[in-house]
Order: sequence, then C-alpha cells, then structure tokens
Amino acid sequence: MIIGRVIGTVVETLKHKSLSSKKILVVKQADETGKYFGQPFLAVDLVGAGENELVCVTQGSSARHAIENTESATDAAIVGIIDRLDILK
Amino acid sequence: MIIGRVIGTVVETLKHKSLSSKKILVVKQADETGKYFGQPFLAVDLVGAGENELVCVTQGSSARHAIENTESATDAAIVGIIDRLDILK
Amino acid sequence: MIIGRVIGTVVETLKHKSLSSKKILVVKQADETGKYFGQPFLAVDLVGAGENELVCVTQGSSARHAIENTESATDAAIVGIIDRLDILK
Amino acid sequence: MIIGRVIGTVVETLKHKSLSSKKILVVKQADETGKYFGQPFLAVDLVGAGENELVCVTQGSSARHAIENTESATDAAIVGIIDRLDILK
Amino acid sequence: MIIGRVIGTVVETLKHKSLSSKKILVVKQADETGKYFGQPFLAVDLVGAGENELVCVTQGSSARHAIENTESATDAAIVGIIDRLDILK
Repeated sequence: MIIGRVIGTVVETLKHKSLSSKKILVVKQADETGKYFGQPFLAVDLVGAGENELVCVTQGSSARHAIENTESATDAAIVGIIDRLDILK
Repeated sequence: MIIGRVIGTVVETLKHKSLSSKKILVVKQADETGKYFGQPFLAVDLVGAGENELVCVTQGSSARHAIENTESATDAAIVGIIDRLDILK
Repeated sequence: MIIGRVIGTVVETLKHKSLSSKKILVVKQADETGKYFGQPFLAVDLVGAGENELVCVTQGSSARHAIENTESATDAAIVGIIDRLDILK
Repeated sequence: MIIGRVIGTVVETLKHKSLSSKKILVVKQADETGKYFGQPFLAVDLVGAGENELVCVTQGSSARHAIENTESATDAAIVGIIDRLDILK
Repeated sequence: MIIGRVIGTVVETLKHKSLSSKKILVVKQADETGKYFGQPFLAVDLVGAGENELVCVTQGSSARHAIENTESATDAAIVGIIDRLDILK
C-alpha cells in the first residue's frame, strides 16, 4: 500500500454503475514525513477519510477485494487512516 | 483510477475479437488542473466520452470488470466523466 | 493498452511451455506520432504484426485473457494493428 | 519481488478489517548493496521482520496469495528476510 | 515480459513456504543490446538460468501462472533464456 494525502474531491456526471454510490477522493502519494508529491489519482474511500488526512491506499485488484465487490471498476481504495509514522533515525 | 484527458481516436485494422465492437480512445493522464502530460495510452470508453473531455480511467484487471467481460483483452477503461475537481488550497 | 512499435524478434532456447508455440516480438512503447522511446519489452503477437508496425499492446493479467489461455506465462500481448491515430489539435 | 529495507512502523486508527490484525511496516526499496532509496510504502509482514532488516517484498495480487487470504485488502507483503546478496563482479 | 540479466543470487533465512523450494535469482532489466540498467529485483527461476545469462521475465499474476502454483507468493518468474535479439536497423 502507499501512503497518501487526500487533496480534494471529484464531481462526475457519468460514472460506472459500480462506482455510483461510492465516495471518490483525489489523493496524492506522500513520503514518510507526510508531504505529498507527484500526480493526483482517484481512490474509493472505505474508511471515512477527510480532506488533508494521511491515508493508506491499496491499488490494483486488491482495491476490488477491499471494497468487497470483486466486480467493481475501481483500482484504488483508501483502506486506512494513518495516525503516525515512526521512522528509524 | 487516474484523471485523463481524451486527446484522440484510433483506427485499427486487426484487433482482438473482444475489442472489435468497442470504442477505443487515445488518452493522456491529467493533473488536478486538468492539464495533460506524458505519453498517450488507449482505453475502452464505457461512458460515451467525447474528445477533450476530462475522464476517470481504471487500469489493469479492474478494466475487465468495468467492461463486464472478465475475458476482455483490455487493461484500461474510461469509467467516468469528470465535471469538476475540488482541490484543497 | 499502450501504443507500441515492433522493433525486432527474439530467439529463446528454453522457454516456458505455455510460450513454446507463440510468436514473441520485441516492442517499444510509442507516442501519438508513432515514434518509439524507452526500453524494449517482449509481447506475444496475436494479430500477425510485422516488424516496424504500430501496434496496440495489452499488459498484465489482461494479456492472459487475450491469449485465451488464462494459465499462460505471458504478461504482454499485441492485440491490434494501428492504422491511424487521429489526435486533437 | 523487490529488495526492501524496513524503515519504520505505522499507527493507523481506522483500517480495513482484513488488515486489522496484521503487522504493517514502512519499507523502502533497496539496491543490491542494501542501500534504500525512493519513496516509502506499506507492506504486511509475514516473516517477523525487524526494523532495518533487508527483506523480500512481493506486490500486487501475489501479496494476497502470500497472506493466504485472497480477499485481503493488501497489495504488498514481506515474504522473506534477506541474509546475503551475492552479486557478480 | 521484460528482458533481464541475471546478476546474482540471494540467501534468505526466513521465507514464505511457497518460495521455500524455489531458486530465486537477482535480476536487472536489460535493453535490446543486452546491457542491464536500473535497480535489481528477485525472480523465481523456472528454466535453469545461470549467472550473467540474458533471460525473459514475466511479472505480476502471470508469474504465479508460470510457476503453475496460482497460490504462490511470487510476482516475477524467469520463463525463458534469450539466445539472440534481432533488432531492426
């Protein structure tokens, strides 16, 4: 899983039916200090993450399993809210 | 899923039978302002996306599930049309 | 799927039985003008692609489905020959 | 699989039920000398890895199989502790 | 599949049971001239590859299928030994 930072929300008019009742957030990958970088992606939120929160994101087919709908169209899901990262000095 | 911008269409003479009746679009990944970048890829359109539209693209095995044909040869599918991205300031 | 350019062929002495009767081509990813770049990879050809042709390549588990052998050892397959890319100006 | 170095631990308040009893470590990819680089990611530990240890990490759907729970939400698992890398000179 | 060069071997004390009887080699990706580059990864050898040999590597879920153990923890497998790459001039 990667460390991510929720940076926003998305409004979609037409979306796949398997995504229609899902909360989709805009996320950027973050480093061990919590600072985000790179390009945004979209992930289904499974844990009630709020904006600016540091989260744990699973990708690929594991996101479908996280959603407990293996026929979902998603390839990314927020599966945890990160309180603290304890990094070795 | 990634944010994408439809930049064109593709004409193929020979293609895999599972793709033969599908509309395939040329897409580039886009950032949170909607500006595209990087290299193009090909995605099956499932939501009637038009050229230049900002879309949500799912990749890998999830694209097959989006298509509702788990035996499809595709690894990318357009599953949403993005109206607006609300990004934290 | 990505846009690819066939740049060569490969001769292998020992290969996995699921690949033994397959034509494997050397491919590089190409941009929207058809120009290739980056590092080569190997893909099973399913459409009779010739050298230097512009092709559509599917990757990952979708390549196994394209081959109609979900137990295949491949992770890339050529599933279309591209005649023309119509890119927005 | 990639070579990884365990660089820390993570505390999460809300996480997916399939991850709730798992030890999750913060890992960075390492090169053949054992030096780590790049961005951190999170992996489920299956072999009792300690901090600073050099480990073998499997990714994607194989991580679910490693965990022996194909419905797990994880996409990365530590499946070995590396004692020594013997590299050709 | 990618082109790889075997650059070494790995000794692991604790590893996942599905990997315990497998020969795991250290590999780097190689270009069309056979020159390797980038960061090393670990792959299960299925064809008796020797050190310094040029090989064909399959990744992701296809590696599990190559091993004929779809419950394996591996995500990379050496599935061919490359004798020659014939590249277009």
